[in-house]
Amino acid sequence: MADAKAQKRQKFESVFPVLRDELLGYLKQEGMPDDAITWFQRNLDYNVTGGKLNRGMSVVDSVEILKGRKLTDDEYFKAALLGWGVEFLQAYYLVSDDMMDQSITRRGQPCWYRVEGVNLLAINDAYLLEGSIYYLLKKHFRSEPYYVYLLDVFHDTTFQTDIGQLIDLITAPEDNVDLSKFSLAKHQKIVIFKTAYYSFYLPVALAMYMCGIPHSSTNDPYELAQKILVPLGEYFQVQDDFLDFAAPPEVLGKVGTDIIDNKCSWCVNTALAIATPAQRKVLDENYGVKDKAAEARVKALYEEIGIRKRYAEYEEGAYERIIGLIETIPTEGADVGAGDVELKREVFKVFLDKIYKRQK
Amino acid sequence: MADAKAQKRQKFESVFPVLRDELLGYLKQEGMPDDAITWFQRNLDYNVTGGKLNRGMSVVDSVEILKGRKLTDDEYFKAALLGWGVEFLQAYYLVSDDMMDQSITRRGQPCWYRVEGVNLLAINDAYLLEGSIYYLLKKHFRSEPYYVYLLDVFHDTTFQTDIGQLIDLITAPEDNVDLSKFSLAKHQKIVIFKTAYYSFYLPVALAMYMCGIPHSSTNDPYELAQKILVPLGEYFQVQDDFLDFAAPPEVLGKVGTDIIDNKCSWCVNTALAIATPAQRKVLDENYGVKDKAAEARVKALYEEIGIRKRYAEYEEGAYERIIGLIETIPTEGADVGAGDVELKREVFKVFLDKIYKRQK
Repeated sequence: MADAKAQKRQKFESVFPVLRDELLGYLKQEGMPDDAITWFQRNLDYNVTGGKLNRGMSVVDSVEILKGRKLTDDEYFKAALLGWGVEFLQAYYLVSDDMMDQSITRRGQPCWYRVEGVNLLAINDAYLLEGSIYYLLKKHFRSEPYYVYLLDVFHDTTFQTDIGQLIDLITAPEDNVDLSKFSLAKHQKIVIFKTAYYSFYLPVALAMYMCGIPHSSTNDPYELAQKILVPLGEYFQVQDDFLDFAAPPEVLGKVGTDIIDNKCSWCVNTALAIATPAQRKVLDENYGVKDKAAEARVKALYEEIGIRKRYAEYEEGAYERIIGLIETIPTEGADVGAGDVELKREVFKVFLDKIYKRQK
Repeated sequence: MADAKAQKRQKFESVFPVLRDELLGYLKQEGMPDDAITWFQRNLDYNVTGGKLNRGMSVVDSVEILKGRKLTDDEYFKAALLGWGVEFLQAYYLVSDDMMDQSITRRGQPCWYRVEGVNLLAINDAYLLEGSIYYLLKKHFRSEPYYVYLLDVFHDTTFQTDIGQLIDLITAPEDNVDLSKFSLAKHQKIVIFKTAYYSFYLPVALAMYMCGIPHSSTNDPYELAQKILVPLGEYFQVQDDFLDFAAPPEVLGKVGTDIIDNKCSWCVNTALAIATPAQRKVLDENYGVKDKAAEARVKALYEEIGIRKRYAEYEEGAYERIIGLIETIPTEGADVGAGDVELKREVFKVFLDKIYKRQK
């Protein structure tokens, strides 16, 4: 089982060097200087690989489920390319988020902007990561009837992510704690725009387009997918916020820093929503303070308000709600022509099962 | 005359608030917090307006020439929207270039990243400026048969610009002068990729698509346009480099800083190409040095090698070459159907006339 998973990952990873070499090939063909080509290669290798690759691999998984069979080599390559497109987009955001958050490490190595000689050039490197997506899409999908839809969905989710990032940045600046700006409603907006669209809707929509699923003016399958995947992404991020507080570091694989970093987390927003004036005072005085004792006081308050129980209730509710949404997908394609690919519940169930009650 | 020019500009400028309000309307419709909407509006107003608008207005001019008649209100709006798209792209680059160059002012005001409270958030603001282009294109052009071409040409030129910027950044870092990295060949690559594609080819290609000019496998009009506009953009930038050195500040409207800033300028590359060992030593010791006396020694050397005469020769040669390229455009559309729009020499002549022997 673990072996099959490792193999799956390895297969997906084996596509990356092909894409990288196509990108480098373009620069070579245009007669670019060697140092520029070397720089670009380092940018790609350093920033696009090394992550968990969940987003990218979920495109391949979804295509396989939708087609209901093993993919041909060409189909696999194309699905993986779309998956890597999501990973390039992720890299684009991580490079810049790390600069804006002044983070130190990412994926066990220094953040790109902190690498010797990079610094603010990382901004242009991020631009190149994004530009790479459209170069690759054009090269491999230009003649497909769904090409323009791929571009639209990348654009739409990119803009949504930028907007989510904007709200997050001005709501929770690390150096200026103001909890009056926080609310569960704002948290929801941030989470949906900054994470859910590009991490959940985008991979599935790409898979759907590649499988030729058409848009429809009544019961549009893309709208239906979005209606399920946005709450799913929201649930995922709430869970992420909760685990940052509650998961043992040895299980999580990192030490949570949301409290110290003044993050607009589900935990603090839940606490704020029900805090007594005395509890609110504790939060105002200790949240976002760079001090272990202050962090401990916030954690104690979380326990005091019973955040673990509240999260467990949230999780059950979210799970039930999403199952209910998944069940609105018709099980048999009465009005789908023979040979046409239809939306399948399985696509969403796989996502939900991976997330439900995860510990890290 | 000056009045007609001011009116033309005013008309073009009057489209901006419409586009801005559409963008803000999207955020409002999605229920974004007021402070995020205010921030986005300030980003748009601060960074997109206030420039010379040559790139944007050249889209409208080109559409008018290609159609050979006054535009309807709807046509004008669409042409202006595409022009503003180029201006949004320009803003995207200026915001980040200023960060990477650590510039102080832009268009007579502090660079965006230096505005109180902005700093590194400017990176996400740049992302939003780029995302705005695709939001507006989708909203207004989604049903046009040429929509996908608009997206492609924006993507292509964006990626080219990113690549040009990369070469420039690693060839001429402000804090590490190494003239052995410079050459006229590299200067040409930087200029073509960083400037010519997005400033010259992009506006004309957008206009051509909007006018319905089709691609062709033989004598593609887009290839032809590119063959003219890339050398034109190169000439424009060489001239820009020369004026930075040679134009009186009271005419240029600013004080040239290319020598002090270690810019990979046409002037220094021309000097390097013909310098005696003694002259090379002067350049190595004084170029990119933050000192007025060092700058004066470089300037004296430029005069010594007769850079003014060399530039005058370059300019005549470039002019003749570009005129020759323009004359390869067929004057009568023998194989163009009635009512079809064809490429016109006038589009390119207008550009060339604006540039030839300009003093600022």
